[in-house]
Amino acid sequence: MSLENPPAGDETTPDVDHDVAEHVRRELTDYLRVRVRECAELDPAISEAAEEVSEFVLRGGKRIRPTFAWWGWRAAGGEVRDRDAASMLRAASALELIQACALIHDDLIDGSATRRGSPTVHVRFAATHRENGYTGTPEHFGLAAAVLLGDLALSWADDMLHAAGLAQDALQRALEPWRSMRTEVLAGQYLDMLGQARADESPDSALRIDQLKSASYTVERPLQFGARVGGADPATVSTLRGFGADIGIAFQLRDDLLGVFGDPEITGKPAGDDLREGKRTVLVAEGMLRARQQHDEAAARLLSSALGDSELTRTRVELVQEALTRIGAVEAVERRIDELTESAMSALHTDELAEPAATRLKELAITVTDRSR
Amino acid sequence: MSLENPPAGDETTPDVDHDVAEHVRRELTDYLRVRVRECAELDPAISEAAEEVSEFVLRGGKRIRPTFAWWGWRAAGGEVRDRDAASMLRAASALELIQACALIHDDLIDGSATRRGSPTVHVRFAATHRENGYTGTPEHFGLAAAVLLGDLALSWADDMLHAAGLAQDALQRALEPWRSMRTEVLAGQYLDMLGQARADESPDSALRIDQLKSASYTVERPLQFGARVGGADPATVSTLRGFGADIGIAFQLRDDLLGVFGDPEITGKPAGDDLREGKRTVLVAEGMLRARQQHDEAAARLLSSALGDSELTRTRVELVQEALTRIGAVEAVERRIDELTESAMSALHTDELAEPAATRLKELAITVTDRSR
Repeated sequence: MSLENPPAGDETTPDVDHDVAEHVRRELTDYLRVRVRECAELDPAISEAAEEVSEFVLRGGKRIRPTFAWWGWRAAGGEVRDRDAASMLRAASALELIQACALIHDDLIDGSATRRGSPTVHVRFAATHRENGYTGTPEHFGLAAAVLLGDLALSWADDMLHAAGLAQDALQRALEPWRSMRTEVLAGQYLDMLGQARADESPDSALRIDQLKSASYTVERPLQFGARVGGADPATVSTLRGFGADIGIAFQLRDDLLGVFGDPEITGKPAGDDLREGKRTVLVAEGMLRARQQHDEAAARLLSSALGDSELTRTRVELVQEALTRIGAVEAVERRIDELTESAMSALHTDELAEPAATRLKELAITVTDRSR
Repeated sequence: MSLENPPAGDETTPDVDHDVAEHVRRELTDYLRVRVRECAELDPAISEAAEEVSEFVLRGGKRIRPTFAWWGWRAAGGEVRDRDAASMLRAASALELIQACALIHDDLIDGSATRRGSPTVHVRFAATHRENGYTGTPEHFGLAAAVLLGDLALSWADDMLHAAGLAQDALQRALEPWRSMRTEVLAGQYLDMLGQARADESPDSALRIDQLKSASYTVERPLQFGARVGGADPATVSTLRGFGADIGIAFQLRDDLLGVFGDPEITGKPAGDDLREGKRTVLVAEGMLRARQQHDEAAARLLSSALGDSELTRTRVELVQEALTRIGAVEAVERRIDELTESAMSALHTDELAEPAATRLKELAITVTDRSR
């Protein structure tokens, strides 16, 4: 999926609007280069570890959170050629470092093998351990490295925000959403693992996790963050947050569908990986509920046995796809995506937001929730 | 060990100098109460998790990092009755939240069962899993909870610093040591686990880890942090850092000795736990080196087999104690502690530092490196 149009041709007049993700990547490249160099002064081994964090961050990702933050700032009237545009871009880029920590730690907790088309951090380090014949177990070495590298990314997120060069009042205004989003993503991850342990199958619980991890952390708070840096009035912030809350859930529901039906070429993960990892998504919860309500024992048994089966074959993934479609769970989730997207769009029917941000946010809403993304 | 004199009797005129640790505990109590309440608004389960972080932080610890930060600020001329004393105390208290993350994650990585006389976070959560008959393994549940709760503490550390109410210029000056210490403690932990995996037995490697985790993160940077908040000139900062670097190593060497010879009543951990956890301390590295140099095969074999043996008996711990003493490793480490303490003391022979800070720092140096602590 690409959130952005092609980069502007004229590199001497950087036009962030045309490719936020690419400008975010450049900011991260510059920032991380300095941090890796600092680490090299501590110890060559530390520099290698810092390099791993840097490569992980730069390897990819859609930069979705910085993109929403940028457009939140633009919607509040921030101008690309303002003196503070570069600071805003850097501050927005710091969101990617929170996300790096969330992903590295989540992959460890979920036991995921692949991320962004490459082995996950704990898997990479376990392999290094094996190759070098280190003492102890490769798994434990992978765990230790993933914990520490995630922590490093989280520390650097704060450092990058505070070194972004925002004006003091703008920074102060941004700290509330910044604080909330870091707590909320961890709260969402915690509820997620607790729900798995408790075998909580209710769609409501799955939705609560989506509200924290996806709606709030991924869309609503980044928009609020950008808008507050831009000095938006409360009505504008409220409009953006309402839009973000709806689009964030819709985005996650699309992700749930892709996690079961997605093309590995696009998602960078094998199809059905959400099932293998035992993720209790709204889609799966909806499927379980409907299977029971419709007394479809075969579907209920299939879903239960597939969920968390790390050896799940491609053929059984296809059976799950058929079952989820047959019992109407796919249609229900698609309908909910449509409703949320519509609700989000109508929230933007307002003249509070500066253009081109209002238009661009609508386009983004379509992009992140679109089935072909 | 107590770093402090008894609390002042008159509670209506808080005299931080007389009991920094107690005042830090109060600041943390106030701050964490608000964060736990915020989490309760997200979800009752999140509030329970936040409560776990809060209890962990409030349960104990010597508040050694905030104490050094406080005295760094006082040495730079900060006055207890200044308007900014309360902000400085809050900012210093935030160091305990970095430390909470470091301990929670370190205990997970080291597989430690006990911390501050209670089960470690991953062990507590594994027990909860067992008691409730959750799905999945208790160990994995413990891992997930420890990763996320440590992350929460690390996020809150930054939040607490930035909400401390420091003047903007003071905060800006403090950010450099703040940034460095967070990277350095993670770098130290990383080198530590890498050294264990590589079975690196050299005293130099062990010393490098001590420089990062103990000297820099525990003493030197907190002193620098406080001094910079207080607006100290470069010469004063340099004096304090020199003192901190020496005392920090001496403190860690004392800790190494306590990890093998310590009284469980005082350390809160079973005697010999450093051996069981396979910690490659300077003491152990020095022991290995000397055993080989003196062709004391029995001592070399004993040390090698004891290190990392999680079932190590009290009797074998005593044999290790005898061996380390016999080959002169204990004496060598004690001598190094004396030299470092002396060097640190002479660094303070200067009239740059405000009293009573200079005197109090000397007393602290004795306390944290003293064999009866």
